[in-house]
Amino acid sequence: MKILDVTSKSFESEFKAVLARGKMDMKEVSSIVEGLLNEIATNGLEALKSHIARFDSWQANSFEDICITPSMCLKAYNELSSDLKNALKLAYDRIYAFHQKQKPQSWIDCEDNGNILGVKVTPIERAGLYIPGGKAAYPSSLLMNAIPAIVAGVKEIVVCSPTPHNNPNPLLLGALHLCGITEIYKVGGASAIGLMAYGIKEIKKVDAISGPGNIFVACAKKHVFGEVNIDMIAGPSEIGIIADKHANAKYIAYDLLSQAEHDEMASSILISDDSALIESVKSHIEHILPSMPRVAIAQKSIANRAVMIHTRNLQESIDIANALAPEHLEVFTLNPAEVLPYIKHAGAIFLGEYSSEPIGDYLAGPNHTLPTGGSARFFSPLSVEHFVKKSSIIAFSAQALKQVGSSCVALAQCESLDAHAQAVLARLDSMKINKE
Amino acid sequence: MKILDVTSKSFESEFKAVLARGKMDMKEVSSIVEGLLNEIATNGLEALKSHIARFDSWQANSFEDICITPSMCLKAYNELSSDLKNALKLAYDRIYAFHQKQKPQSWIDCEDNGNILGVKVTPIERAGLYIPGGKAAYPSSLLMNAIPAIVAGVKEIVVCSPTPHNNPNPLLLGALHLCGITEIYKVGGASAIGLMAYGIKEIKKVDAISGPGNIFVACAKKHVFGEVNIDMIAGPSEIGIIADKHANAKYIAYDLLSQAEHDEMASSILISDDSALIESVKSHIEHILPSMPRVAIAQKSIANRAVMIHTRNLQESIDIANALAPEHLEVFTLNPAEVLPYIKHAGAIFLGEYSSEPIGDYLAGPNHTLPTGGSARFFSPLSVEHFVKKSSIIAFSAQALKQVGSSCVALAQCESLDAHAQAVLARLDSMKINKE
Repeated sequence: MKILDVTSKSFESEFKAVLARGKMDMKEVSSIVEGLLNEIATNGLEALKSHIARFDSWQANSFEDICITPSMCLKAYNELSSDLKNALKLAYDRIYAFHQKQKPQSWIDCEDNGNILGVKVTPIERAGLYIPGGKAAYPSSLLMNAIPAIVAGVKEIVVCSPTPHNNPNPLLLGALHLCGITEIYKVGGASAIGLMAYGIKEIKKVDAISGPGNIFVACAKKHVFGEVNIDMIAGPSEIGIIADKHANAKYIAYDLLSQAEHDEMASSILISDDSALIESVKSHIEHILPSMPRVAIAQKSIANRAVMIHTRNLQESIDIANALAPEHLEVFTLNPAEVLPYIKHAGAIFLGEYSSEPIGDYLAGPNHTLPTGGSARFFSPLSVEHFVKKSSIIAFSAQALKQVGSSCVALAQCESLDAHAQAVLARLDSMKINKE
Repeated sequence: MKILDVTSKSFESEFKAVLARGKMDMKEVSSIVEGLLNEIATNGLEALKSHIARFDSWQANSFEDICITPSMCLKAYNELSSDLKNALKLAYDRIYAFHQKQKPQSWIDCEDNGNILGVKVTPIERAGLYIPGGKAAYPSSLLMNAIPAIVAGVKEIVVCSPTPHNNPNPLLLGALHLCGITEIYKVGGASAIGLMAYGIKEIKKVDAISGPGNIFVACAKKHVFGEVNIDMIAGPSEIGIIADKHANAKYIAYDLLSQAEHDEMASSILISDDSALIESVKSHIEHILPSMPRVAIAQKSIANRAVMIHTRNLQESIDIANALAPEHLEVFTLNPAEVLPYIKHAGAIFLGEYSSEPIGDYLAGPNHTLPTGGSARFFSPLSVEHFVKKSSIIAFSAQALKQVGSSCVALAQCESLDAHAQAVLARLDSMKINKE
C-alpha cells in the first residue's frame, strides 16, 4: 500500500492519481456493448439465447428456460437456515423503514388569488433491477434495489441476473421470494440491460433500470439512458476513512480490508493526522491479510489501490476527504458529529467506531448503491426518488391570470413567440368582454 | 393535421407513430459530437476558438474574447424597458418561490437504541447551464435553469450560450444580470457541453449540466453523463390537451399553435370525445395560422406533427394521454380536478382554461424544463434536486450494533465476504471483553 504525506513534494502528483481512481475507459467495451444491444433489439429471444450460451455456458431452448418461477424462489427460501431467514428479514425491515422515510409526497400550495401550484408524485410503472451473479451471489444487492421500488409503489418489478451453467443461486432465489418478486430472467451483462431497456416480443420494456455491474453493464446502462432512466454509472467500490489518534487501528484495518476483498480494483484510503495510527493500521493489515479467504483479491487491491494519507491536522483530513468524494466515508475521530457539517461529498457517511461500513452494506437501512469514483460530488445514493417521477401541477384562476397575464405577454413577445402571447391575450380579452 | 378516431381500424398503427414521436436517432450526429468533445478535451481554448469560428462565424482571439462580463449584463439590464424588467422580476420571484418549496432538506431519525440514521443534503459546488442562442434568445430558459441552482445554494454557476457573429442578445444579458450570474462564456453546442464537462486550462469543470438544446447538445450531454450529472435528454417540445364539449375551442387552438411555433418538429395533440369541438379547433387553427409571425414553422409543425384524436369518452381520453406521456398536458374539462388523480404520466399538468401552457413557460412558477417524447414515464421536471446531492448518515451505537451485529455477520458470510463479517465481529468481541 502507498503512504502519502501532504507535506511531501510529490504529494500533488501522487494525489492526482488517487483522484483519478474512478476513470473508466469505456472506449474498448463500447462497440462490443453496442453490438450486443443491437442484437437484442433486432433478434429478441434468439439473441438472448445465443448470449446466454456464449457468456453463461448453458443452452436455453425456450422462453420458459430463461424464467425463474416463484415456486423455485419459495422452495429456495424455505431451505434457508432460520438464522439466515431472520437476518434477511431484519435487513428487509430496516431498509424498508429507512426508505419509507424518504418517500417523496405530492404537495400543493394554494395562493390567495385562487391559484393552485404543486407537484404530483407517481411511481414509475415498471422497474428493471440488475443483480450480478457471476462470481458470487448478492442477495443484499437485491434487497437494496428492490425495496426502494417496492416503497415507491412500483407495480411491476423485473429482475435480471445471470446464472452461469444454469445454476441459480439459492440465496438470491430466497431473497427474491422475500421481496415478492415474480418476474425473473436468467440473463446477465449488457444483454440484460438491453432486454429491460428495449423489451422483446415476450417481455415488455421497463421505465427505469438500477443495479450494479461490471464495465459492460455500466456501458450498456449509459447507452440506454434516455430510452429508460438509469440509477447511476458506478465503478469499483471504495472507502475513505478519516481517523485521529483516538481511533481503533484494528477496526480500521478490517474496514479497509472489507473494501479490498470486493474487487482488485477497489480503493481503500485512510486519511489521518496521526502517523502512529497509520503505522499500526498498516501492520494490522499485514497481519490479517494472509489468513483472509479472499486473500488473492484483497492482496492485489491493497498492493495497487490502497493509500494512506498523512495530514497535518483534522481540517486537512476533511479537505482531502472532500477532494476524494468517496463512496463510503468513515469518520473515526474523538467527536465525529463535529466533523459532519464539513463533509461535502460522500455517498454514505459512517460516524463513530461502531458504524462499520459492512453494517451499511447489509442492514443499517440506507441504500448501499452509492456513487463511486468521485461522482458523489453530483450523484446521490439510490433511493425511492429513482422509482417515482413528478409532474408539476398548474391550476390558474381567472383572477391570477389577470394579475400576471400582461407580464407573461411581455415575456413571450420579447422571445418572439407571438402565439404564446396570443394564447394569454385570448383569455384576458374574453374576461374583459364577460365583465362588460 | 391528422385526425384519428379510436374506433377506426387503422388507429392502432397510426397511434404507434404518434407514440414514437420522440425517437431521436443520434447515430448520425454521434461521431461528429465525439469529435468535437475530444477536440475540447485535447486542445482546450484553441479548439473552442476554432469551433466558434466554424459554427458562430466570428473570430475569438483570446480567452477574454469569449467571456461576457457582469458590466455588459448590467448595461443590458438597465436598457430594458421597465415593463420587461418588471415582467422578468415577477417571473424570477414566482419561479424562486415555487422552487424554494421543493428544496430538499437534510433529516435525521434517532432510534431508541441510540442510533442515528439520516440524509445530508449538500448543494453541488459548480453548475453549468446551457442556454441556446441561435435563432432566438430565451431569457426564460435562463431563469428556469438558474433559479433552481440558486435556490439549491450552488456557489458557482457557469452559463454557456452561443453568440452568432459575436452579438450577445441583450435580453439574455439582462436576465443574466437579474440572476446575478457572472461567469458566462460565448460558446454553444457540443463544444459548450465539453467545455463544462471536462474543463479547460482557463475554466474549471462543473459537477452538473442542465439546459435545453438541439440534437447535438442532447447527444453531447448523453456522452458526458457520468463525468458530470445531466438533467435529462430532451427532444422537441410537445403538448397534449384533454378537452370535452365544455372547452373553449379558440383557447385550445392558440395553445396548440403556441407549441407549433416553437419548432417544426414540435407535436400538438388534442384528445377529445367531442367531434364538434375537434372540428371547431381545426377551423380556428386554419383561421389563425396564416397571420402568425412564425407561420412557416407553425405550418410545418401543424401539417406534419399535429394530431387530433377522437375518443368515445373521457376515460378513453385519459388513457390516450397516459399512453402519450406528454411534456405538457392541459385538461380542459368540466371538472379538471376530477381528472388529476388518473393522470399518470406528464411533465406538467395544466388544469382548467385559465391555465394556458405559456403561463407555465414563463412565470407560473414550476420549471419549464420538462421531459419530452414520452420520457415523462420516468423523468421529472428540472428541479432543485438536480443541483444538490445527498449523503446517507449512519451513526451506530454500541447497543444497536449488539442488536443487529450477528445478523450482519450471517449476511456477510452468506455472500462469502469474510472480512465484512470480521469487521463486525471485531467490534462485538471487544464489547464482550469490555463487559467482562
